[in-house]
Amino acid sequence: MQALYFDGSIELQDLPRPEPRHGEALVRLRLAGVCRTDLEVLRGYHDFRGIPGHEFMGEVVGPLDSPLMGQRVVGEINIPCKACPRCRQGLARHCRERRVLGLRGHNGAFAEYFTLPEENLHPVPPEVPDEAAVFTEPLAAALAVSEAAPASLDQRVLVVGDGTLGLLVSFSLALRGLATHLAGHYPEHLHLAEPYGVKTWLADELPTGEFDLVVEASGSPGGLTLALNRVRPQGTVVVKSTFAGHFSLDPALLVVPEVRLVGSRCGPFPAALRLLTQGRLDPQPLINRVFPLSQGVAALDFARQQGVLKVLLAGSPSDL
Amino acid sequence: MQALYFDGSIELQDLPRPEPRHGEALVRLRLAGVCRTDLEVLRGYHDFRGIPGHEFMGEVVGPLDSPLMGQRVVGEINIPCKACPRCRQGLARHCRERRVLGLRGHNGAFAEYFTLPEENLHPVPPEVPDEAAVFTEPLAAALAVSEAAPASLDQRVLVVGDGTLGLLVSFSLALRGLATHLAGHYPEHLHLAEPYGVKTWLADELPTGEFDLVVEASGSPGGLTLALNRVRPQGTVVVKSTFAGHFSLDPALLVVPEVRLVGSRCGPFPAALRLLTQGRLDPQPLINRVFPLSQGVAALDFARQQGVLKVLLAGSPSDL
Repeated sequence: MQALYFDGSIELQDLPRPEPRHGEALVRLRLAGVCRTDLEVLRGYHDFRGIPGHEFMGEVVGPLDSPLMGQRVVGEINIPCKACPRCRQGLARHCRERRVLGLRGHNGAFAEYFTLPEENLHPVPPEVPDEAAVFTEPLAAALAVSEAAPASLDQRVLVVGDGTLGLLVSFSLALRGLATHLAGHYPEHLHLAEPYGVKTWLADELPTGEFDLVVEASGSPGGLTLALNRVRPQGTVVVKSTFAGHFSLDPALLVVPEVRLVGSRCGPFPAALRLLTQGRLDPQPLINRVFPLSQGVAALDFARQQGVLKVLLAGSPSDL
Repeated sequence: MQALYFDGSIELQDLPRPEPRHGEALVRLRLAGVCRTDLEVLRGYHDFRGIPGHEFMGEVVGPLDSPLMGQRVVGEINIPCKACPRCRQGLARHCRERRVLGLRGHNGAFAEYFTLPEENLHPVPPEVPDEAAVFTEPLAAALAVSEAAPASLDQRVLVVGDGTLGLLVSFSLALRGLATHLAGHYPEHLHLAEPYGVKTWLADELPTGEFDLVVEASGSPGGLTLALNRVRPQGTVVVKSTFAGHFSLDPALLVVPEVRLVGSRCGPFPAALRLLTQGRLDPQPLINRVFPLSQGVAALDFARQQGVLKVLLAGSPSDL
């Protein structure tokens, strides 16, 4: 099968089709999304070697007795050990021994075929097209903001960053009825949030004033400083960005105004699929370009350019 | 009157005695504490010019009709404008126009006399000696940890930093019944926490394991990294340190484990005075040395040395 393989550099390789282990399904790729985190992995983040890719939708093609056989699926990316104290305490996604699809100890979705435990997979309802379903993972991550910082509905909310995650966060907050503002650098991205009633701003032109809740989804070191400068005293900043680098954090911006910074990562797939099924949240306008998997290296180069939103990789039509 | 005056450098000066404004009391210094923040101010933190000093106990010597006249007092350091939206919303200690004793727009306590609004002052109960009362402000700041991160009593708590604030935090957490650990660099400091049942560790020798709540009170950039490495996933780090510098914050230590960072500053004086009155929490062993105010410059030099805990400045006997 064809797959993108990273071993210090990324290239298309012809690799053996993986064999699902006990409890795993074999998934044939339909669409994979290129995430900022994938690009960070190619810069050394997580020290990963193997096939990257963790945003996907595909179809189950094995084993033949799988209850999901033939179904379109999306999948949660963490594969916990299930034996350690954290797993037993319900903190499975923080299991130290966990493998993570395309990020840690488990080959990812930038391949014609890949494996995941069946219990990680969620069938995609027929109403949801492939091009929307492939956003389930980042949309779930966006919804996790609600779990990290429940906001009362009279609060003013600012999302920093108009990449895929920032946009999805702004959509989902606006759908909760919150007065949602979005600051970014690309008018054509900001424009995508306006149908949700999100008030959008070029970051340089954000008017003075403070927010009760700021979501930092800029993916860059400067985003946190902007967020801390705009959150009210005793307000909350939810930090979504991961990248290979460090924030420079002025303690006076955290301690003196008694601000709360909350790290937030993965979120609930079922909730994301419900939203996609209702169709009130449509991520498809975020797609910039779809490349065939065979042109994956070019796709990653394209995704790396400033101002590009979502790039998808398409698996080849079924040949099973 | 004698006072320490900072104008890029610090020196003892002979200055006019301040006149209390309407609503203010004139306080004669009995004891002032040198805080790490004062030393940071002398390095440029807050860009303050004037008389520093914000930890004090003194006696009210004017105006003659003050209801507090003649009483021993301690005082809250924030002087809000009372007119702005934040003040009206109950966020007075975050008032943008606030003056802060010895830190912003209001001369501080490293002087024979200083002023504060009467409503900032709290009478010191007769059971509390001067040498304990002078710790009211830092003890209140230590107690603020409870407000920033209420912990259930089965949680494991680590305090990072064995300076005055770290020690007072560890004392107060242990008095709540929490399993409290303290990591620091000075055996003679750590020793002071043992009578409270605090389990103490040299930072290099802290055994592996995780904590539900970590309080960062190191006053140095490295403290936050230690804290983040020791907090459990979805745990809380309360950040107490302020200094003229920046933390380097690895987003992967915040976002991936979904940790919560909470900035915490000032705390409740009445609660601190209750603890001091009961005598179950005695800060006096933290005093390294008492200098007369006239030797204040030498006192600040002494306080700046590694491993020094609390240095006090004593006002001269009353000459009113």
